[in-house]
Amino acid sequence: MRIAVINGPNLNFLGIREPQIYGYETLKDLEHMLKNESEKYKHMLKNESEKYKGVELEFFQSNSEGALIDFMQQCYYNKVDGIIMNPGALTHYSYALADAIKSVSIPVVEVHISNIHARESFRSHSVTAANSIGIIGGFGFDGYTMALAGLVKYLNQKSKE
Amino acid sequence: MRIAVINGPNLNFLGIREPQIYGYETLKDLEHMLKNESEKYKHMLKNESEKYKGVELEFFQSNSEGALIDFMQQCYYNKVDGIIMNPGALTHYSYALADAIKSVSIPVVEVHISNIHARESFRSHSVTAANSIGIIGGFGFDGYTMALAGLVKYLNQKSKE
Amino acid sequence: MRIAVINGPNLNFLGIREPQIYGYETLKDLEHMLKNESEKYKHMLKNESEKYKGVELEFFQSNSEGALIDFMQQCYYNKVDGIIMNPGALTHYSYALADAIKSVSIPVVEVHISNIHARESFRSHSVTAANSIGIIGGFGFDGYTMALAGLVKYLNQKSKE
Amino acid sequence: MRIAVINGPNLNFLGIREPQIYGYETLKDLEHMLKNESEKYKHMLKNESEKYKGVELEFFQSNSEGALIDFMQQCYYNKVDGIIMNPGALTHYSYALADAIKSVSIPVVEVHISNIHARESFRSHSVTAANSIGIIGGFGFDGYTMALAGLVKYLNQKSKE
Amino acid sequence: MRIAVINGPNLNFLGIREPQIYGYETLKDLEHMLKNESEKYKHMLKNESEKYKGVELEFFQSNSEGALIDFMQQCYYNKVDGIIMNPGALTHYSYALADAIKSVSIPVVEVHISNIHARESFRSHSVTAANSIGIIGGFGFDGYTMALAGLVKYLNQKSKE
Amino acid sequence: MRIAVINGPNLNFLGIREPQIYGYETLKDLEHMLKNESEKYKHMLKNESEKYKGVELEFFQSNSEGALIDFMQQCYYNKVDGIIMNPGALTHYSYALADAIKSVSIPVVEVHISNIHARESFRSHSVTAANSIGIIGGFGFDGYTMALAGLVKYLNQKSKE
Amino acid sequence: MRIAVINGPNLNFLGIREPQIYGYETLKDLEHMLKNESEKYKHMLKNESEKYKGVELEFFQSNSEGALIDFMQQCYYNKVDGIIMNPGALTHYSYALADAIKSVSIPVVEVHISNIHARESFRSHSVTAANSIGIIGGFGFDGYTMALAGLVKYLNQKSKE
Amino acid sequence: MRIAVINGPNLNFLGIREPQIYGYETLKDLEHMLKNESEKYKHMLKNESEKYKGVELEFFQSNSEGALIDFMQQCYYNKVDGIIMNPGALTHYSYALADAIKSVSIPVVEVHISNIHARESFRSHSVTAANSIGIIGGFGFDGYTMALAGLVKYLNQKSKE
Amino acid sequence: MRIAVINGPNLNFLGIREPQIYGYETLKDLEHMLKNESEKYKHMLKNESEKYKGVELEFFQSNSEGALIDFMQQCYYNKVDGIIMNPGALTHYSYALADAIKSVSIPVVEVHISNIHARESFRSHSVTAANSIGIIGGFGFDGYTMALAGLVKYLNQKSKE
Amino acid sequence: MRIAVINGPNLNFLGIREPQIYGYETLKDLEHMLKNESEKYKHMLKNESEKYKGVELEFFQSNSEGALIDFMQQCYYNKVDGIIMNPGALTHYSYALADAIKSVSIPVVEVHISNIHARESFRSHSVTAANSIGIIGGFGFDGYTMALAGLVKYLNQKSKE
Amino acid sequence: MRIAVINGPNLNFLGIREPQIYGYETLKDLEHMLKNESEKYKHMLKNESEKYKGVELEFFQSNSEGALIDFMQQCYYNKVDGIIMNPGALTHYSYALADAIKSVSIPVVEVHISNIHARESFRSHSVTAANSIGIIGGFGFDGYTMALAGLVKYLNQKSKE
Amino acid sequence: MRIAVINGPNLNFLGIREPQIYGYETLKDLEHMLKNESEKYKHMLKNESEKYKGVELEFFQSNSEGALIDFMQQCYYNKVDGIIMNPGALTHYSYALADAIKSVSIPVVEVHISNIHARESFRSHSVTAANSIGIIGGFGFDGYTMALAGLVKYLNQKSKE
Repeated sequence: MRIAVINGPNLNFLGIREPQIYGYETLKDLEHMLKNESEKYKHMLKNESEKYKGVELEFFQSNSEGALIDFMQQCYYNKVDGIIMNPGALTHYSYALADAIKSVSIPVVEVHISNIHARESFRSHSVTAANSIGIIGGFGFDGYTMALAGLVKYLNQKSKE
Repeated sequence: MRIAVINGPNLNFLGIREPQIYGYETLKDLEHMLKNESEKYKHMLKNESEKYKGVELEFFQSNSEGALIDFMQQCYYNKVDGIIMNPGALTHYSYALADAIKSVSIPVVEVHISNIHARESFRSHSVTAANSIGIIGGFGFDGYTMALAGLVKYLNQKSKE
Repeated sequence: MRIAVINGPNLNFLGIREPQIYGYETLKDLEHMLKNESEKYKHMLKNESEKYKGVELEFFQSNSEGALIDFMQQCYYNKVDGIIMNPGALTHYSYALADAIKSVSIPVVEVHISNIHARESFRSHSVTAANSIGIIGGFGFDGYTMALAGLVKYLNQKSKE
Repeated sequence: MRIAVINGPNLNFLGIREPQIYGYETLKDLEHMLKNESEKYKHMLKNESEKYKGVELEFFQSNSEGALIDFMQQCYYNKVDGIIMNPGALTHYSYALADAIKSVSIPVVEVHISNIHARESFRSHSVTAANSIGIIGGFGFDGYTMALAGLVKYLNQKSKE
Repeated sequence: MRIAVINGPNLNFLGIREPQIYGYETLKDLEHMLKNESEKYKHMLKNESEKYKGVELEFFQSNSEGALIDFMQQCYYNKVDGIIMNPGALTHYSYALADAIKSVSIPVVEVHISNIHARESFRSHSVTAANSIGIIGGFGFDGYTMALAGLVKYLNQKSKE
Repeated sequence: MRIAVINGPNLNFLGIREPQIYGYETLKDLEHMLKNESEKYKHMLKNESEKYKGVELEFFQSNSEGALIDFMQQCYYNKVDGIIMNPGALTHYSYALADAIKSVSIPVVEVHISNIHARESFRSHSVTAANSIGIIGGFGFDGYTMALAGLVKYLNQKSKE
Repeated sequence: MRIAVINGPNLNFLGIREPQIYGYETLKDLEHMLKNESEKYKHMLKNESEKYKGVELEFFQSNSEGALIDFMQQCYYNKVDGIIMNPGALTHYSYALADAIKSVSIPVVEVHISNIHARESFRSHSVTAANSIGIIGGFGFDGYTMALAGLVKYLNQKSKE
Repeated sequence: MRIAVINGPNLNFLGIREPQIYGYETLKDLEHMLKNESEKYKHMLKNESEKYKGVELEFFQSNSEGALIDFMQQCYYNKVDGIIMNPGALTHYSYALADAIKSVSIPVVEVHISNIHARESFRSHSVTAANSIGIIGGFGFDGYTMALAGLVKYLNQKSKE
Repeated sequence: MRIAVINGPNLNFLGIREPQIYGYETLKDLEHMLKNESEKYKHMLKNESEKYKGVELEFFQSNSEGALIDFMQQCYYNKVDGIIMNPGALTHYSYALADAIKSVSIPVVEVHISNIHARESFRSHSVTAANSIGIIGGFGFDGYTMALAGLVKYLNQKSKE
Repeated sequence: MRIAVINGPNLNFLGIREPQIYGYETLKDLEHMLKNESEKYKHMLKNESEKYKGVELEFFQSNSEGALIDFMQQCYYNKVDGIIMNPGALTHYSYALADAIKSVSIPVVEVHISNIHARESFRSHSVTAANSIGIIGGFGFDGYTMALAGLVKYLNQKSKE
Repeated sequence: MRIAVINGPNLNFLGIREPQIYGYETLKDLEHMLKNESEKYKHMLKNESEKYKGVELEFFQSNSEGALIDFMQQCYYNKVDGIIMNPGALTHYSYALADAIKSVSIPVVEVHISNIHARESFRSHSVTAANSIGIIGGFGFDGYTMALAGLVKYLNQKSKE
Repeated sequence: MRIAVINGPNLNFLGIREPQIYGYETLKDLEHMLKNESEKYKHMLKNESEKYKGVELEFFQSNSEGALIDFMQQCYYNKVDGIIMNPGALTHYSYALADAIKSVSIPVVEVHISNIHARESFRSHSVTAANSIGIIGGFGFDGYTMALAGLVKYLNQKSKE
């Protein structure tokens, strides 16, 4: 099972950016944590399905809407099974990113580190979420772990249908 | 660790209500699944902290806004540590429920079975989410499991501070 | 044919409440009138379809959104064939009631005693009507009789399909 | 009792126009059905009031807002007692038609074949309904029969005052 | 000087239509009054300018937007110098009528019998006024006389330039 | 003079709920304070009017919109003279509560503990205030005392008319 | 008949201010023109009504909302019969001026030199017009003459009732 | 292949109406140009499909919404294959015209002479375009030629399916 | 304790202005009533706190926003302890007045004679209330007495802190 | 005549992306088709104007707003005569792209494959169209051919002026 | 070069008013600072242009919209070359002040002490800025110095043309 | 003191792009001018603070939102003290750029060459300004000089604290 973890604008500044909201850990920490987390799934999945041998994670971050879409298209060619994406502020206006989700037809879970409903009003509207399978917000870095759990379960279920 | 799982209007009709959106399993199934899930935590937590001995779940469902607030207040007196809540359609207009979250000062995770951003436009606005610690939507019943994972982690972290 | 007649908040104050708008007759008068009206259908239907033997009416009124949803769910279990509902002011904001209509999958006719388009602007918007099969407004108590006629015809037609 | 049945733009294409919404019967069918329905009232009314000897129906359809207003004014001169009107799409913007209702001072019942609250959002707003005595929607052709019943009752009541 | 006086939908029902707002005099009365008023100008103008010999009035009323535009185009071919127009309710939505004013390039004075700013909110917005040279409202029939005075002065001024 | 003091959702959590906004005193404290305050009026009123012998207070709190309406209807039957109501968050969307005020025809004074104009924007709009005789906000518990003073004066005046 | 002519902010800069919109004549010119115009009425009125002996004009201009209200109140004490007012930009936001019209109960005709519907969108909304008897716009200085004609006629009519 | 070319209000004034926007050529010129253009298609189509022998054009213009709908309905009976329509200002509010497109089930290409996105804001919204197969704007008369090309291609494709 | 009572535009016309809304008593009556009322406080306060010897009232009314701000600034220099203000129509748009409240840092109670939530919609929004400590509306002149009571209590409390 | 064909985000996924809307042909197919189409013009133009020798097409696609602007600026330096652009989802929010059109002063024709007026509401608003010379939508790939025809004609006309 | 420095409502309370936003220095300090600053320009300008001999500053502050307009008109008569204006809260609604800028035809630079885009939402909209040549905000008192620099440069440039 | 001067989309086309708005000078001219301007500060600052030895400018322009954010992040690592930024059209929708300002915690002055309040309405709203320390608009290239002056002063002040 190949899963891409995509982070949008300014998320490479985790640890530096408004730490009272986004915490003191860095993007590297986040990716490391997810790598570890994925180990758990590798084992567990072997027992359930021969087809997938664990979870392979691929990480990408960019401040550019275009590069993010490019990478999502690459995911299509690389047969990535699912995407965990935090589009950063692009969440609120990038219809191009929203279209990309539909274009590549890969299940996307949208993650937000902070609770977007508890901040400036423009943050409570997501133009990308409508094309995602689910959304998780407010759990800090743990939101990515939860997204991984949810996405793996979703993909397993789909592979059984 | 005491956690209340609260479901709002029409969620007792899971399995009957629009199954193409909400699935064919019932509220009983959901509660049973969560009970099982909680077993896992009981064991795991023993090792980490003496103070909490596993996770005890309490379930509540009502079609009445007032009864939901009553129960949340009861949670306050019963020293419930955290709440997983799916407020159903009240999500979109019940400022009273939103106030209740603040009144009882118990961390709440808001769960939606469907992806509220991919349906009628009125569903994409949540008046309760602003007072929650986090929100999860679109993962079907699994959203509750994920909420449980996220909430347990959040409470453990807080108890260590 | 079992039909439930459901009246929402403040409709038990018919005869007392703003009689220049809602008239001087009471809810009891209304229910009595409908009872009589239903007699007519009992006879007429015998000739048309063996399956249904007349129209049986059940009345319910509550000031509580939750109790109204509870009753609608009871209608589901009691195999009620159709519902005539005047949701009162809940018409304008109760998405929970609107969801309940979809949850129970029973055909609903929405009735308003006054012409909601000729009063305060908030009254001209109905969140429940979208899930009903039809809407009748402005005919006073006669609107319920008309609703009964319309609903019986609709159910007969459906039973023939 | 003289009653005019007025249908607005595109309603002469009933049976042709989007039959999944408006059905397969034609405007002629509708008018024929109403003619038959009116027979019933002729008899019934004799017993109640000497002044009116049954219900006489007059039919009019036009795609032109101006012709519809012209006809309504003719109704005034012909001493028409009541009007059943389906203004078609003019419902949503023809303030001129709405003014005409007030100008001629004849009670109007507004009918819609489909449930205007369950379709495109522009259809849920009626500028003519505010000047009507009542509105009926969602019952297909039966809505006209119901409107006839409601209007006859309304006019009888008024004639007694 | 040829001046057309154009009245839109429902204004042929002056005297019948809501007389508490529009008064008890008829459209005929209005046109007669204006005819008389125009006599005054005939004399006065002789002295000022050889080119124009008094004011000739032409009256038109229609309930049809299309017929009103047709007539305005006729005015263009008949070399009408100015137009006094009360577009009735079309004022508030007929962009086609507004375009017609620009198409025929004849100065238009917009008149309203009642004060459109003191009634329903939709009446306070005029889509035709932007293309007129001026607007007069609230003076009953006298508004037309005032419009005549204003228009004659405007046209005289222009003819001198 | 019988006066009911009605408190809506979450106001039974006074003292617990966001004390920096609502203070540290409880609903019991509030009711006790008002009881004492009413003593003052008992004496004073004796001198002015034989008909009323002081002020009798009745207290009610509920988290349920329906129960609040039920109680207001009970006030009608119990011949309550006036109501002091803090509808809590229902202030901002409960058209049913607003209708109830009109239904029971009892003068209502609306009280808010905090200044609703100085908080979240949704709080600055009251749907119930339009049907009240007056509104008081921002004075903490003292607002209730002031409401009592204002209501007593209003009722005395009315009883003299 | 005493008539006050009130001009609001910036109208003392007529002739200087944007002459392509407001013309090259000054406020003095305007007042002089109206003085002359009023001579005409003096004579004419003698024949119609003994009570009023011609038209006496009083002029006032101020850039201050407060001073304009002060003057309008002075008009009340001076028994002014009617007011011609061009509130300038206050037209669009001065609810205080709008209230003043109601407070002094003197008929007001609102005049605008330019066509307010053909300029910036904020100019097409008048908060004062709702309390005036009529509105005239787009006729340059002639609008004042027309207002005078309309107001005199209105006052004569009223004095005869 | 029968194609109707329908022009709405004021388009018969092409050449007269605001020539800086709409050009100096007339409706006759436009229709003549299209006639010539259609010659080209006659030949070309012979080779591709036996069923259609070239393109026959029918022209219609009216200032009346009703007459435009009447003509579209006539197109249905005359088995017109496609329609090129410039609804003029009706584009922006005529839901009746929009409904007519659906009623007759004939493919419509919407043409605008000017670029409706580069003028007044009300022109950028089209209520008819949603029911058309395509829209062309800003190319002057050439837009009609392009529409013809697009429509012929569309119809050929459809006839092959 | 020095308290200023400030009344905004048109409030000097109390008794004259729309008496059905504002009553028949004058501003002088109001100020006299408050003077009397203040006597009561003088005595009462002596017992509670040595620092304040009763309540001294200062009255100010102006139709000018600027003069009202000037006076409020004077209050700052005169060490006024609290302000009771009815800003009249300035309530709804004077951000300058709202800023003045913050500038002078004196506690303000906002009073309205009528219930601003039960009149024109523009009156239900207050731009000044957000900077006040509280708001009272709908109690006629008594609202000022209530405001005095509330303000005195508030200031006493503050002086004790 | 040099013409650039620019495609925005996700259009390189034509054939993959939602084929029920965008068809099964790829961007390569589209460019190939246009290349062929341009051959036609090469010949035809030779006869009309010596200056231009046929049409040379240049293709560009990018998912990045910045790269699209960079390329448009390159077009300026390369003396490109006209641009056919499908900005993809950037159509709806990229004011930067809209500014670029103005910056480079090259005529742009905006093309959309689908009918943007018949899909999600956000798609019906184009921020780039206002700066284009024309817009074509709903004709699938043929829209590009039509755009080429329209642009060539436009440029020929301009070169003759 | 004569430059007027105009400060609107509440700016005479600089140093007193919300010092955390507006600082602890007074209006006197500001004017003194600007006086000093202007010395610099006196010298510098001598070298560049004979026509102007340095910068002469004139200061004005008022809490009254009317007085501010009066002063601006005085500037016109006094041949003031440029204006630096901080309209205070009038920025957000005083269309009269905006009109005054156009009336006097003197270049205005709008200054705000705080960053109006980073405070309450109503502050981010300026109705006066559209008529100014430029706007400066967020630099505290330095904004005035910067405005002086910008205005002097602008006027020098203009004087050279 | 290191200061970065960042220009957004289309600003590399200064001199080419709409010169009537943006002038005839190029980005190179602008950067050259600022370089010269910075010389002035180098000297001046030496005297005031040993820590900073004059002002070093770094220039960056990009049409890509992502590249602009990348550069801002580079500024963070390069210990840039302040940023002068003209985000071009990104000003109006790039929440990602706005977030970047907060992420890097470097003081930003926002500059616009034209007066954004005097052009299309979408330009009057800035999403980036809220996170800047100040904004300057309408002064052409001089705005950058002014920004430099303001920023240097701001940074000096901060370094002294």
